[in-house]
Amino acid sequence: MRIELLTTGDEVLDGTIVDTNAGHIERQLDALGYRVERVTAVRDDRAELEAALRAITARASVCITSGGLGPTDDDLTVDALAAVAGVDFEHDEVAWGHILARYGDRPVPPRNRRQARRPVGGRLLYSEVGTAPGVALTVGGCQVFCVPGVPREMAWHLERHVLPALGTPTPGVVRRSVRLVLIGESTAEEKLATISLPPEVAVGWRALDTEVELKLRGPEAAVAVAEAAVRRLFGPVAIEEADVATAALAACQRAGLSLGTAESCTGGLVGAALTDVPGASAVFFGSVVSYANSVKMDVLGVPEAVLRAHGAVSEPCAAAMALGAQRALGVDVAVSITGVAGPGGGSPERPVGTVCFGFAGPAPGQVRTETRHFRGDRSLVRRYAVAFALDGVRREVMGGKA
Amino acid sequence: MRIELLTTGDEVLDGTIVDTNAGHIERQLDALGYRVERVTAVRDDRAELEAALRAITARASVCITSGGLGPTDDDLTVDALAAVAGVDFEHDEVAWGHILARYGDRPVPPRNRRQARRPVGGRLLYSEVGTAPGVALTVGGCQVFCVPGVPREMAWHLERHVLPALGTPTPGVVRRSVRLVLIGESTAEEKLATISLPPEVAVGWRALDTEVELKLRGPEAAVAVAEAAVRRLFGPVAIEEADVATAALAACQRAGLSLGTAESCTGGLVGAALTDVPGASAVFFGSVVSYANSVKMDVLGVPEAVLRAHGAVSEPCAAAMALGAQRALGVDVAVSITGVAGPGGGSPERPVGTVCFGFAGPAPGQVRTETRHFRGDRSLVRRYAVAFALDGVRREVMGGKA
Repeated sequence: MRIELLTTGDEVLDGTIVDTNAGHIERQLDALGYRVERVTAVRDDRAELEAALRAITARASVCITSGGLGPTDDDLTVDALAAVAGVDFEHDEVAWGHILARYGDRPVPPRNRRQARRPVGGRLLYSEVGTAPGVALTVGGCQVFCVPGVPREMAWHLERHVLPALGTPTPGVVRRSVRLVLIGESTAEEKLATISLPPEVAVGWRALDTEVELKLRGPEAAVAVAEAAVRRLFGPVAIEEADVATAALAACQRAGLSLGTAESCTGGLVGAALTDVPGASAVFFGSVVSYANSVKMDVLGVPEAVLRAHGAVSEPCAAAMALGAQRALGVDVAVSITGVAGPGGGSPERPVGTVCFGFAGPAPGQVRTETRHFRGDRSLVRRYAVAFALDGVRREVMGGKA
Repeated sequence: MRIELLTTGDEVLDGTIVDTNAGHIERQLDALGYRVERVTAVRDDRAELEAALRAITARASVCITSGGLGPTDDDLTVDALAAVAGVDFEHDEVAWGHILARYGDRPVPPRNRRQARRPVGGRLLYSEVGTAPGVALTVGGCQVFCVPGVPREMAWHLERHVLPALGTPTPGVVRRSVRLVLIGESTAEEKLATISLPPEVAVGWRALDTEVELKLRGPEAAVAVAEAAVRRLFGPVAIEEADVATAALAACQRAGLSLGTAESCTGGLVGAALTDVPGASAVFFGSVVSYANSVKMDVLGVPEAVLRAHGAVSEPCAAAMALGAQRALGVDVAVSITGVAGPGGGSPERPVGTVCFGFAGPAPGQVRTETRHFRGDRSLVRRYAVAFALDGVRREVMGGKA
């Protein structure tokens, strides 16, 4: 079965709105074990729509279109579909009755009568969530489903009308993914090539900013064997959780430790990432964002002598910041970040991308520091620093177990 | 000129990631007066890629592909392009030199050598932001540009290599956009309908999360008249800067005031937004992220009696937090945010989405509070709170001028 999607609408092609419909349909299909082979997006233009529908219906066994079912003149999907199928329209009394019922006492605008036109040989799919009925029509060997573009209506039609019509795909195939932290895609792939996985497991990769997702797909038992081998191979680089902030919070929670941060160049991003996780308050107490040196001294108690002798971007400063945050915030474990995110502020000794980290606790006075040089622009240096800080907390707290 | 985009990647077709690249390219082209006619997304599959490229190059005069330029085996875009063009590869010493330089002292994984393959007759577009060079190749009557899929690298290649190659569309036509803060698109549209603009100016809208962009396009003089009228109509809702964080920093800098924040439910997002702007350190000293009540008391000096009598999400607590941050951070102006971002933590008196703000300074002891109810999920409530806090700082500092 080959499935393709067709999205319509000028606003999608101007970048005015992000097409979230395609992603929703893809995830729903993926969860059932189907895959989408191609997505096409075209403008509200009759010739473009017809050309796209003609090509898709010639290739695919299922086509799901979204958008262009409204009552206005630029809603052209059904007209284009009927033209490609070479069929006329007939009035659908049942669909028209639904539209009238939906309006109740209010007058129905005359143009809504368009929405009760049924391509000959097709079906109108009634809607409980809007006036626009969906349309189902088989063109050649391709089942075409037209659903509305309004996300809520699209989702309803998909679940109610489209998915039930598709039946069950390949049973027994499962998917698992393993999140790898602070490793490049090519390094990870080369490392994976050093072991062999069950041949019936398909491997996929997804590079995120500071993480890589390794996707495994195949029969359940083989996927379980593969996942165990991958986790053994990558050790602490592989996390169980969906992202490194969640992993850091989970590690602290398991260890019964509270967490705080002292942030300079990240400006609050580590706290923001932690508090993006609902329930973070069980572990995360707060942060001191000490962008100015005066705040490093006044709130965190970094000695002026340290700043004078080593500068703000230094391991001694990072150590003093982490210990200061541990004390000021009253937390068991604190991580500090101080660096040069750029574009300005670099020097020969401390070029842009230099970031120093401090990890304080849980034992009183215990502090470890580390320096990293990240490549990239300001935004990327900051995101790497966030990932490194959170991953460091996780490893620090897990101790020998990470 | 007919422009089409081609996005590649299994992750886009599984709904694992939302393809934001197409939207970015569309908006950049739209700003120059170009329009995209079609977007196609296909899997990392050689046959699919070739079929899509063959069809697009037959129809379009410009094709921009994103993704599939990495060093791994499922990076197939350039192979497919060369096959469609019917050309071989040659090794590009200059591109290879850039890749080597990028790795510096680290060993270059052997597979990265793929990235220095140039289709005969084409050009490799060097990159300052990653190892993957872009590719430019003309196939029949179609200029094809292949850019990486990593959004940051894609954006760099687009700006540096692709847009300059396209030239200028309609000369004499200028575009200006006015950023409107914390107003809905339909409200803004209704307000704009109360005035009349020069008829030769085309108006477009783009709804962002917490802002709306009003786009004006037409002859220079008429656009200037329209922009002035729009700015008069919307008053302080219209900002001059690209975003509200930049606007808040600029307002403080003009007034010679330093800025700090006390954040609870936003967890550091306001500081992160401010420090995303290079040079923020001239104005922004730091934040206290007081997620736990103990930090509100210990670091910000919020009286326990206030927390007991009014709760943490209250205007008295917001006032105490703002004044505490002003004092602890040694800043002229401080903004505080305390609210219920959800999904849990709501109550009948303080439902999810309730956020209290405090604005302290510049006069000693001066503080103003405000409460807002934002609709949406945790992430959206937090983003609204950030925008409201930053916009509040801007208006507060500008006083009668905002």
